[in-house]
Amino acid sequence: MRQVKFALTKGFRDFYPEEMAGRTWLFDKMRASSRLFGYQEYEGPALESLALYAAKSGQELVQKQTFILKDRKGISLALRPEMTPTLARMVAQKQGELVKPLRWFTIGPRWRYEAPQKGRAREFYQWDVDLIGSSVPEADAEVIAVAVSFLASVGLTPKQVKIKINSRRFLEQKLKLISLSQNKINDVFKAIDKQEKMANQEWLAYLKEIGLTKLQIEDLQGILADKDFSRESEELTALFSTLKDLGVGDWVEFDPTITRGLDYYTGTVFEARDTAGEFRAILGGGRYDNLVEAVGGLPSDSAGIGFACGDVVLQALLKKSNLWPKAKPAPARVLVTIFDTSTYRHSLQLATQLRQKGIATEIYLETDKLDKQLKSADRQGIPLVVILGPEEIAQQTVTLKNLASGQQEKIAQTKLAAKLK
Amino acid sequence: MRQVKFALTKGFRDFYPEEMAGRTWLFDKMRASSRLFGYQEYEGPALESLALYAAKSGQELVQKQTFILKDRKGISLALRPEMTPTLARMVAQKQGELVKPLRWFTIGPRWRYEAPQKGRAREFYQWDVDLIGSSVPEADAEVIAVAVSFLASVGLTPKQVKIKINSRRFLEQKLKLISLSQNKINDVFKAIDKQEKMANQEWLAYLKEIGLTKLQIEDLQGILADKDFSRESEELTALFSTLKDLGVGDWVEFDPTITRGLDYYTGTVFEARDTAGEFRAILGGGRYDNLVEAVGGLPSDSAGIGFACGDVVLQALLKKSNLWPKAKPAPARVLVTIFDTSTYRHSLQLATQLRQKGIATEIYLETDKLDKQLKSADRQGIPLVVILGPEEIAQQTVTLKNLASGQQEKIAQTKLAAKLK
Repeated sequence: MRQVKFALTKGFRDFYPEEMAGRTWLFDKMRASSRLFGYQEYEGPALESLALYAAKSGQELVQKQTFILKDRKGISLALRPEMTPTLARMVAQKQGELVKPLRWFTIGPRWRYEAPQKGRAREFYQWDVDLIGSSVPEADAEVIAVAVSFLASVGLTPKQVKIKINSRRFLEQKLKLISLSQNKINDVFKAIDKQEKMANQEWLAYLKEIGLTKLQIEDLQGILADKDFSRESEELTALFSTLKDLGVGDWVEFDPTITRGLDYYTGTVFEARDTAGEFRAILGGGRYDNLVEAVGGLPSDSAGIGFACGDVVLQALLKKSNLWPKAKPAPARVLVTIFDTSTYRHSLQLATQLRQKGIATEIYLETDKLDKQLKSADRQGIPLVVILGPEEIAQQTVTLKNLASGQQEKIAQTKLAAKLK
Repeated sequence: MRQVKFALTKGFRDFYPEEMAGRTWLFDKMRASSRLFGYQEYEGPALESLALYAAKSGQELVQKQTFILKDRKGISLALRPEMTPTLARMVAQKQGELVKPLRWFTIGPRWRYEAPQKGRAREFYQWDVDLIGSSVPEADAEVIAVAVSFLASVGLTPKQVKIKINSRRFLEQKLKLISLSQNKINDVFKAIDKQEKMANQEWLAYLKEIGLTKLQIEDLQGILADKDFSRESEELTALFSTLKDLGVGDWVEFDPTITRGLDYYTGTVFEARDTAGEFRAILGGGRYDNLVEAVGGLPSDSAGIGFACGDVVLQALLKKSNLWPKAKPAPARVLVTIFDTSTYRHSLQLATQLRQKGIATEIYLETDKLDKQLKSADRQGIPLVVILGPEEIAQQTVTLKNLASGQQEKIAQTKLAAKLK
């Protein structure tokens, strides 16, 4: 074997047609669930000024994980590590022009400089769903229902996946009750987010390090173990009640340990996890009521709720659950064979006629033996073959062969397109 | 108006839902023409090692136009300025595994650091169509026919666009006849490619500068003015004859001044131009029989022909020709209104039932006056509104209003989904 001179960049992926077929299947499911709830597709640029992320996304993402380059004028640009800041910028830029609420979604690449490992890639695709301009809990519930609609559409069930929901506002109130000051609360949110990645002792030491007393640590553990909000949070009560009305009650549960890593969340936060606990979050999101204003938009446009769902974890879970389709790239419907050089142009003209009728038609390019041409169709999954020899040309017919059944019949060229439709 | 704090990066584009709808229309046309000829979709990474482009794409593209960044290990990565080197790398990497010929296409972003102006952007989308593993002229013709199929599908005609075709091999033979040495021929190809961007005097001076004698310059001008290849090139004769058999004879013409800018082309080269001469090339491509081998693939896999079509010039031409669709983002089929807080959950449940039947349904989120809710549906282009008040709830009916006709009728909730389908 020859030495391949150039390798795929580490943490990146090639999508050969077979993998692309799976990806297209997945993205189509995402689009279908978005549209079912009236969401419209948008897209933004891959590069944004680094400052846009520095404003709100949080230090870890910006300083450690973002691919940064300088343009020829020395301005730092970031390969977007996430989409929400772009969305906020786009909304802020058209302040007053867009009719609220906005229901938008997008599917596209994001880049993060992470250690490549199971469930992670440096280039991955994310589906982002956002509802901007409404702050009622029904908006939060709707966005979560879009996520559930998608999870169900790819064959997952509430036995395999749960959406764990919390409210930063609710948690904040609880943390204030144990005398944590406002400027310590964000640190505690982050600490809670990191808990599952740390050993228990390590985590307790970390809490001490950020300034919690022994009593506060005990109280915090009590808060995080309490799975019942019902006496205390009107907001969460309304949210869970609406989720039931939207038919997704089985998929959701309250979980006070969910805080999400990004700085801009203000209220509801949620993530979908596999119940077996094998994977990272399948999707995650929350309410970000200050973000649009923070990037220059109107305060009245600023209420926002949304989530992002990456393709890497999802694909791993679907493959493990035998739900990833054995999607084959859609082949042509028919292969037109070549008898010899003298009849080549007849085959070309026939293929052209079929294409003009909208029939996906491949032509064999060489004058190989018929057997080899049939084998090529079969290997590609093309179901039908048109054979056009001197006899057929003289009679203005073709021989149409069905590769699966092996049956073949002669039919008039004028009737071929109708037959193939 | 408040100051927007973060601007879109220069040379980049936002796709709000309206623009995205146009883009989706365009990409769907590209996909349809590709599939009509049996081509299958693939995708590669946005970042490749810079060395991959340095190998073959040509100095101008790599040194002046490529966005470069270093990863955290100091390796130079390029944001892909074009797709063909990625394609060649992917083919080289699976040497022996892929059944030839390959008919592949892809649509995705490319990045070039160019001065933003009409018809150019630093981030643009390109449709790439390639046929790898066949060197017969019928392969070249097929790829050109895919391009024509697409141009026709968006409403263009041979009066508006011509595909100008040349052969580097044919031109090379002609240049050898005027005693140009092999190592000067590439310089002359580039000079010919630049001719239209230069004043005539400037161009003549440039030819002198790269070492052409006065006689050679005169002879070269003669070669470039001769629109007839028919006595001399079997290859071009076969190509144009096949293009006629494929029904695209009206769209193509021989043009000895076409050489294309990239270094890796070896034979047929072509580009589509608007006949009015207003725009840059709409699409361009050619045969690259050494590229796969150059990146480490098997010589037997190396025959390749393809083209790339960018979205920016194309969109400008289609808009000028009144062919760009006034595509509106697909809205939901129906809006379910909210009567008041006491009936809210009935509306949610009804919307859920409709979605379960596959009907794209938006719910109004606030308890605004009905008029305002109807206006919102109308502004979004949602054609139907479901009104659900206490009376309807008691009767298990809904009032279905058609916004275009203004007509409304009461129907049973159980019959609503069937009615909306």
